[in-house]
Amino acid sequence: MLGLMQDHPLLIWQLLEHGARHHGHVEIVSRRVEGDVHRYTYRDALRRAYRVANAIDALGIEPGERIATLAWNGYRHFELYYGVSGSERVLHTLNPRLTPEQLAWIVADADDRVLCFDLSFLPLVQAVHTRCPSVRHWIALCEGDALPKETGIPNLLSYEAWIDAQPAHYAWPEFDERSASALCYTSGTTGNPKGVLYSHRSALLHALAGSLPDSTAMSAQECVLPVVPMFHVNGWGVPYSAPMTGAKLVFPGPALDGKSVYDLIESEGVTLAAGVPTVWLALLAHVNGNGLRFSSLRRSMVGGSACAPAMVDAFRAFGVDVLHGWGMTEMSPLGTLSHIGPQQKSLSVEQQTQLICKQGKVPFGVDMKIVDDAGTELPWDGIAAGDLHVRGPWVVSRYFGKEGIDARIDGWFPTGDVATIDPDGNMQITDRSKDVIKSGGEWISSIDIENIALAHPAVAIAACIAVPHPKWDERPLLIVVPKPGATVDRRALLEFYAGKVAKWQVPDDVVVVDAIPLGATGKIQKNLLRDRFRDHALPNL
Amino acid sequence: MLGLMQDHPLLIWQLLEHGARHHGHVEIVSRRVEGDVHRYTYRDALRRAYRVANAIDALGIEPGERIATLAWNGYRHFELYYGVSGSERVLHTLNPRLTPEQLAWIVADADDRVLCFDLSFLPLVQAVHTRCPSVRHWIALCEGDALPKETGIPNLLSYEAWIDAQPAHYAWPEFDERSASALCYTSGTTGNPKGVLYSHRSALLHALAGSLPDSTAMSAQECVLPVVPMFHVNGWGVPYSAPMTGAKLVFPGPALDGKSVYDLIESEGVTLAAGVPTVWLALLAHVNGNGLRFSSLRRSMVGGSACAPAMVDAFRAFGVDVLHGWGMTEMSPLGTLSHIGPQQKSLSVEQQTQLICKQGKVPFGVDMKIVDDAGTELPWDGIAAGDLHVRGPWVVSRYFGKEGIDARIDGWFPTGDVATIDPDGNMQITDRSKDVIKSGGEWISSIDIENIALAHPAVAIAACIAVPHPKWDERPLLIVVPKPGATVDRRALLEFYAGKVAKWQVPDDVVVVDAIPLGATGKIQKNLLRDRFRDHALPNL
Repeated sequence: MLGLMQDHPLLIWQLLEHGARHHGHVEIVSRRVEGDVHRYTYRDALRRAYRVANAIDALGIEPGERIATLAWNGYRHFELYYGVSGSERVLHTLNPRLTPEQLAWIVADADDRVLCFDLSFLPLVQAVHTRCPSVRHWIALCEGDALPKETGIPNLLSYEAWIDAQPAHYAWPEFDERSASALCYTSGTTGNPKGVLYSHRSALLHALAGSLPDSTAMSAQECVLPVVPMFHVNGWGVPYSAPMTGAKLVFPGPALDGKSVYDLIESEGVTLAAGVPTVWLALLAHVNGNGLRFSSLRRSMVGGSACAPAMVDAFRAFGVDVLHGWGMTEMSPLGTLSHIGPQQKSLSVEQQTQLICKQGKVPFGVDMKIVDDAGTELPWDGIAAGDLHVRGPWVVSRYFGKEGIDARIDGWFPTGDVATIDPDGNMQITDRSKDVIKSGGEWISSIDIENIALAHPAVAIAACIAVPHPKWDERPLLIVVPKPGATVDRRALLEFYAGKVAKWQVPDDVVVVDAIPLGATGKIQKNLLRDRFRDHALPNL
Repeated sequence: MLGLMQDHPLLIWQLLEHGARHHGHVEIVSRRVEGDVHRYTYRDALRRAYRVANAIDALGIEPGERIATLAWNGYRHFELYYGVSGSERVLHTLNPRLTPEQLAWIVADADDRVLCFDLSFLPLVQAVHTRCPSVRHWIALCEGDALPKETGIPNLLSYEAWIDAQPAHYAWPEFDERSASALCYTSGTTGNPKGVLYSHRSALLHALAGSLPDSTAMSAQECVLPVVPMFHVNGWGVPYSAPMTGAKLVFPGPALDGKSVYDLIESEGVTLAAGVPTVWLALLAHVNGNGLRFSSLRRSMVGGSACAPAMVDAFRAFGVDVLHGWGMTEMSPLGTLSHIGPQQKSLSVEQQTQLICKQGKVPFGVDMKIVDDAGTELPWDGIAAGDLHVRGPWVVSRYFGKEGIDARIDGWFPTGDVATIDPDGNMQITDRSKDVIKSGGEWISSIDIENIALAHPAVAIAACIAVPHPKWDERPLLIVVPKPGATVDRRALLEFYAGKVAKWQVPDDVVVVDAIPLGATGKIQKNLLRDRFRDHALPNL
């Protein structure tokens, strides 16, 4: 028997309609690619999103077809989020940090029909457009008179001219809430990038659960600055959760240096900022280097990579709480958030910092488990480490173009991370699954071994990898780059592990090299190291 | 094109599974009908909810069939919320304050199969059970040895004996999230009560949106006391939102007097309490009368009827913020919550109190509008008053048993209230639609007229009703009961309105009576007054 409640599908356009109707005067402030600051309200944004939807209709783009963006965080990108998804097309956010080859491959895989780009990416577009045969329309996100001549891009339109001719009203369609809304590709460190195809339902449930008090606590009290790019997993969902809750929204454009971010925080009264650790290091360096302080910022959300205790302490010195999150492109992205519960209020500051640096607890909607090689669930004792599997309505089931292949194992998505979970449900990632060293049935965390090496005064970079071993299956090998002018003594470095880990976890050998290969996102490419040292002769210790 | 995210229906059992798995050690504390205090954890509650589901299976109750409760707020009622709805049956919460006749009518209308009751309601059950032929099983919420002999109720079982024989594990079914989960009847001040049939989807979306920071801000930081009964619109959703967020849950049982509620707040460290104004008046009287203070309470949620400024001030004196909500059985119940936004932080305390006493803003998911008699939407200027219509995924579409009749007008549910909405989206109820006086095309709020009369030192009770008028259609008539020993002078009372309302809003006449008819819920029965004074001769003023 069905209930007798109203049947409204959850659709992305409802978020902006709500923002415009119930928080219509709240501002959206954008530092533009042009350098100046643009400001308007949710009500204004809705009217321009209507124009965008009408302009897309006029191009004859079919429901479900992809419209790509190559753009910084700003009001025009925000309008595309709603005009594209709201009118039942799919917003495909491209990462401008990729190479032209990667971009062309992704645009072809996604079969994009339209590509909208900030003028700062014109050279990139010029480099790829001949390799993007699926793209029929190129739109530069600028005024008509700012459009450069002779770009070589056929039929290039300015965004403002494109939408200006359209009426400022639009009747949003109602359709299945499981319809595709947005597409984002993984970074693809192994193999080709894979497309994650979000739905209206997943985006709205993610926005609701992600705004709960123990998640980001998004509300009309906040002025939120998503420094995290809108091409990076939907800007962590902030473009959805802000109009949903009536938060003031501040977009930084391309200016992500410490001074620019700081000035925007201060001038707009930002209370909550969201970004990756590297951006915060630059911000903190600027603030510390110039004897500044934060007058409005209360919370800094850190994600994308693990948050170091030093960053928690540095923000705390300014009265700013760190909100440490973990997620994935495949998770929309929210997986867990670090969490100081009522029971932990009595912990020392240092213990609280340790807790904040864990990946944390899931909100309602996500479930997680850790499993061993046989798929058996491991206990939540904070000690047992296993492959981390997740599930929930905003977790991927299949990849775009690979609909025939279930991305799950028994209904759970394997994250590729190795983690522990403590009795309170706090998850901590200890390694990547492919990097963990499996020795004699036990797992050794490569990250733990590397962190100890990095604490040694002579070590600049450290990588710990597994090398095959006839008796133990795998044994850890440590590869280090010395600090400039320093010398690493193999035996002394191995002795440095005494008392820090169990004896059987100490690496079997140390190799000193001049350089370690890093990928495009700054991560050590351990697959290359594993290839190179596959036949390394381990000494008999 | 559908998105490629995991397809999990939103089902009520997921809330308790989440609470047990991720907040498993968090306590549920209940003051029992037996008088003592019972405590256990979400993990324990889940195991007993499994037993309940197995016990229902064993009775052969079909999916969609109704299982009724006549119970106070406590852990057994909480287990029924999950065991019944989670196993795809419908939980029908009965209001024990109804008369036996009303109860029998509702049980028959709902076609209830099982009725579970607290022992304090045994006399009521004894009075109605012969008139409830649909009920096949009667369960007393007690231990086996507490079951009275010779009750006259056939096959009466104790709850503990009923579930004790069952296994403490259960495989929850997966089904359509739009399936019915719970049934609650309106008070039915006009005509018979009407059943509102909630769905799993409506309950979960309501729990998510209702827990947002600008809604109730439910979180693992809170210790929540729902004084509002679980038979009154699902206890405002607290039994769902608490396990969803990991809040500690405290149930008051039948002891709703000021001392009992205060003692429980203090002994359990309650931070958020939810109830109707009469309960809070008793609590505040106890606290003020005994020179006490609140050591943990931070927020008091007030709903059910409008919150007076004096209550906001009284709680503020103890450092407790009032959260003023408005809703309806037909809205699950959350409609609006009073809201102090960033722009209002600079208002004076008095102005903030006025704002808190408005009904407030909608969370995402609810939309509202005010319309005139022709159905035309009226402006949000804080002045224009119109019929309040609402819509959203947790708003009713049809009533139980009346599936053929749409309860909506053009897709919007007419609340029966008259309201204004200010430019910030703050809604304020000015009257009930049926009570408003429509004079010469203008609307006069009966509540405004009554509030002025109540400010007169001689007036104890005031009711303003419309009487037919040949020229103006309707004109206001004021009916008052004097305070003991006081005399109401008709002319002086009418002069008391000078400068307080427009001249055309002043009542045409005053009738002094000894008593005014009140209904079961303490509300003035204006329909009886309108019948009685239909032919009242208005003087030519």
